[in-house]
Amino acid sequence: MSLGESIDIPSPLKKLNLEPYDRVRIIKGSSTYEGVLMPKTEILGDDFIVIKMDNGYNIGFRLADVKVELVSKRSPPLIEGYKPLSLKADLPKVSVIGTGGTIASKVEYKTGAVYPSLSTEDLYESIPELGEIAIISTRTLFNIFSEDMKPEYWSAIAKAVAEEITKNEVQGVVIAHGTDTMGYTAAALSFALQQLPVPVVLVGAQRSSDRPSSDAALNMLGATLVAARAPFAEIVVVMHEGISDDNLIAIRGTKVRKCHTSRRDAFKAINDTPIARIIKGREIIVLAKDLRLRTEDRKSLKVYPDFDSRVALIKVYPGIPPEAVEWLLHAGFKGVIIEGTGLGHAPSYIFPSIKKLIDNGIVVAMTSQCLWGRVNMNVYRTGVELLRMGVIPCEDMLPETALVKLMWCLANAKDEYEVKRLMLTNIAGEIRPRTEYQ
Amino acid sequence: MSLGESIDIPSPLKKLNLEPYDRVRIIKGSSTYEGVLMPKTEILGDDFIVIKMDNGYNIGFRLADVKVELVSKRSPPLIEGYKPLSLKADLPKVSVIGTGGTIASKVEYKTGAVYPSLSTEDLYESIPELGEIAIISTRTLFNIFSEDMKPEYWSAIAKAVAEEITKNEVQGVVIAHGTDTMGYTAAALSFALQQLPVPVVLVGAQRSSDRPSSDAALNMLGATLVAARAPFAEIVVVMHEGISDDNLIAIRGTKVRKCHTSRRDAFKAINDTPIARIIKGREIIVLAKDLRLRTEDRKSLKVYPDFDSRVALIKVYPGIPPEAVEWLLHAGFKGVIIEGTGLGHAPSYIFPSIKKLIDNGIVVAMTSQCLWGRVNMNVYRTGVELLRMGVIPCEDMLPETALVKLMWCLANAKDEYEVKRLMLTNIAGEIRPRTEYQ
Repeated sequence: MSLGESIDIPSPLKKLNLEPYDRVRIIKGSSTYEGVLMPKTEILGDDFIVIKMDNGYNIGFRLADVKVELVSKRSPPLIEGYKPLSLKADLPKVSVIGTGGTIASKVEYKTGAVYPSLSTEDLYESIPELGEIAIISTRTLFNIFSEDMKPEYWSAIAKAVAEEITKNEVQGVVIAHGTDTMGYTAAALSFALQQLPVPVVLVGAQRSSDRPSSDAALNMLGATLVAARAPFAEIVVVMHEGISDDNLIAIRGTKVRKCHTSRRDAFKAINDTPIARIIKGREIIVLAKDLRLRTEDRKSLKVYPDFDSRVALIKVYPGIPPEAVEWLLHAGFKGVIIEGTGLGHAPSYIFPSIKKLIDNGIVVAMTSQCLWGRVNMNVYRTGVELLRMGVIPCEDMLPETALVKLMWCLANAKDEYEVKRLMLTNIAGEIRPRTEYQ
Repeated sequence: MSLGESIDIPSPLKKLNLEPYDRVRIIKGSSTYEGVLMPKTEILGDDFIVIKMDNGYNIGFRLADVKVELVSKRSPPLIEGYKPLSLKADLPKVSVIGTGGTIASKVEYKTGAVYPSLSTEDLYESIPELGEIAIISTRTLFNIFSEDMKPEYWSAIAKAVAEEITKNEVQGVVIAHGTDTMGYTAAALSFALQQLPVPVVLVGAQRSSDRPSSDAALNMLGATLVAARAPFAEIVVVMHEGISDDNLIAIRGTKVRKCHTSRRDAFKAINDTPIARIIKGREIIVLAKDLRLRTEDRKSLKVYPDFDSRVALIKVYPGIPPEAVEWLLHAGFKGVIIEGTGLGHAPSYIFPSIKKLIDNGIVVAMTSQCLWGRVNMNVYRTGVELLRMGVIPCEDMLPETALVKLMWCLANAKDEYEVKRLMLTNIAGEIRPRTEYQ
């Protein structure tokens, strides 16, 4: 989604003197469609035309099948006429780090064009209320699709956040992130950044800013408020609590999961209560106890940015073949998280495969595909057998969080014994006490 | 969990004249524990003693560390003194098929011993109310741990259900099943048994019958009521709606998922409304529309019991290596369900691996690890690219249901084209119309 790769249009359209983001009309048989001409993509090439319609959806046509007409030329650049606000000097300083995703993009309303930059001016222009909350500095770290997030990017984000906190002495950090893998990154930062002095808030948008139902502005407002003002110094995700545009919720980074493909309230606290509710982006109501509080001591921050990506996640199911486990033996892997059934079970016919992994020095840990609840491998004989083999029970950790944690442990522990000990120890709220959510 | 493997006790205890299920006292240092002596297991061998305590939990000790005393001898056999009820001859006939799991076991309350049979007498004795609802016949098909369920067992269950319906002409079938994989089996039967004349109800228990909080009796009562009396002829799971022992819920077999490791209300309808509520095991309130209704025409039943188990389920995550996909190339696989992120995404660096699968004739279909919501691969360029490669978008299907469906399609469709067509066609409620749950 970098701007560089998307400035061309299919060749046949150039002959019509069209440019990207011009408004065009497409006539196909007796139907007519109007919208903004989108740039050419590598995959669709010169044979297709794609327009963004006014409802926000893209629609593509084979050029051979349609007639294309110009409706109006694309509008002038974005920021023209923008006047910066006069900010109060005593507002808290907040750093907004862009990593990609809908929320980190600026959409030109008239054309539908998406600009991957996230400038301070853009933010104040789109969400004027931010000017009352914080003095914002922005920093685009990278701009990638959420699904392309990788452990090495987590390290880069952790280092950038640490720099903002220790060098630039901001009162909070907001990370604009695509929603697909935001939960994984939130967990990663929870292990990489410990003893935080200020809040670190991940925020995304389920609907892009060019759609009337976008959640981008309110989410960004609430995230900035939490970064600037929340009393707790925790890593949280801030997103819509419900489907209406009023309350947001702050969820602990190790307990958050995207539980809907498209709804604005997709992010849920699993096996945990939300940390705070944000009323209309204006007021923070703290809901959880035992939170780490803000501190002036910025030297308390501990940064452990490394992850070992040689960890796999395997979900078991009826009929899973031994090969689904044993490929790990030949791929240089150091750990695997099993998403077992129920209390932490796996088909008994793959026990020999699991044992092979362990015998080859691969750390094996068990979570549950139920997602809610807690692994308990002492209830049935088969669970006990796995424990005796050396499988680590991940308590009430999300499978995704356990995966990230094992990647982190393998990069930071001095030996396998310490990896196991750390996996069983609560580091960042990923293991909650047994009674809390009964 | 067959009785045959569990009749021995650790050798040192035999010298004390103890027998399995005797009540014993264990003294360890200054602590004393009382409970029922459990049989020896292969894994713990002669060095350990395990007792079932009165709270239902098993606890183990190293024999070398403790002193063991007899409290009282085990109680006499179970059914002694049982008098069969005089059943009304005009009650509906219901077949209860045992496949394993807590619900299909009879627990002797005094000793904690688990008997894997599920006899009609046991059922009427444990749940006398059943005598007012149905004339029950029982049939133990097999007795396996839920996590050991396999596609070939689904076939056996489908055939047994069909036999009960067509030969024994029952008014409904109850399948007692372990909860871990009950959702997978429910989906499998939904594709294997079409144009049903009567209801087919899967039921399980989250807590075993020997614990005061067991949900076994109410679940079995409600399941039998639905099988005997419900107006719809659908495949459903009947389990607790909430954590209190009052209402049950009937959930469509293709839309049901175990969403908690231990709670009684673990089973949820995902992207669907529940089909019916059962008030206190006594009254059925139908909640859904467009249900298939009961019919007297038993010949309408179509049985397609075959599944091709050479299908894998792969959940993607940040850092997933190409090997996690490519092992499928060398293992004789015919299909794979990807549990993508968000609207149906996968890291773009594994696109070449996905393309290799497709080029090798492996069917690839996309679901979302969000679980709730609907795959929509037309929104972003990368999704379009996967579609153009030939990846099948699984709409709002659960990943687990898509896996089972692909196994079924590969065994029943005549060619790859028909597999794709069937995957995109709603067969058993697994694809719901777009507006219903918005």
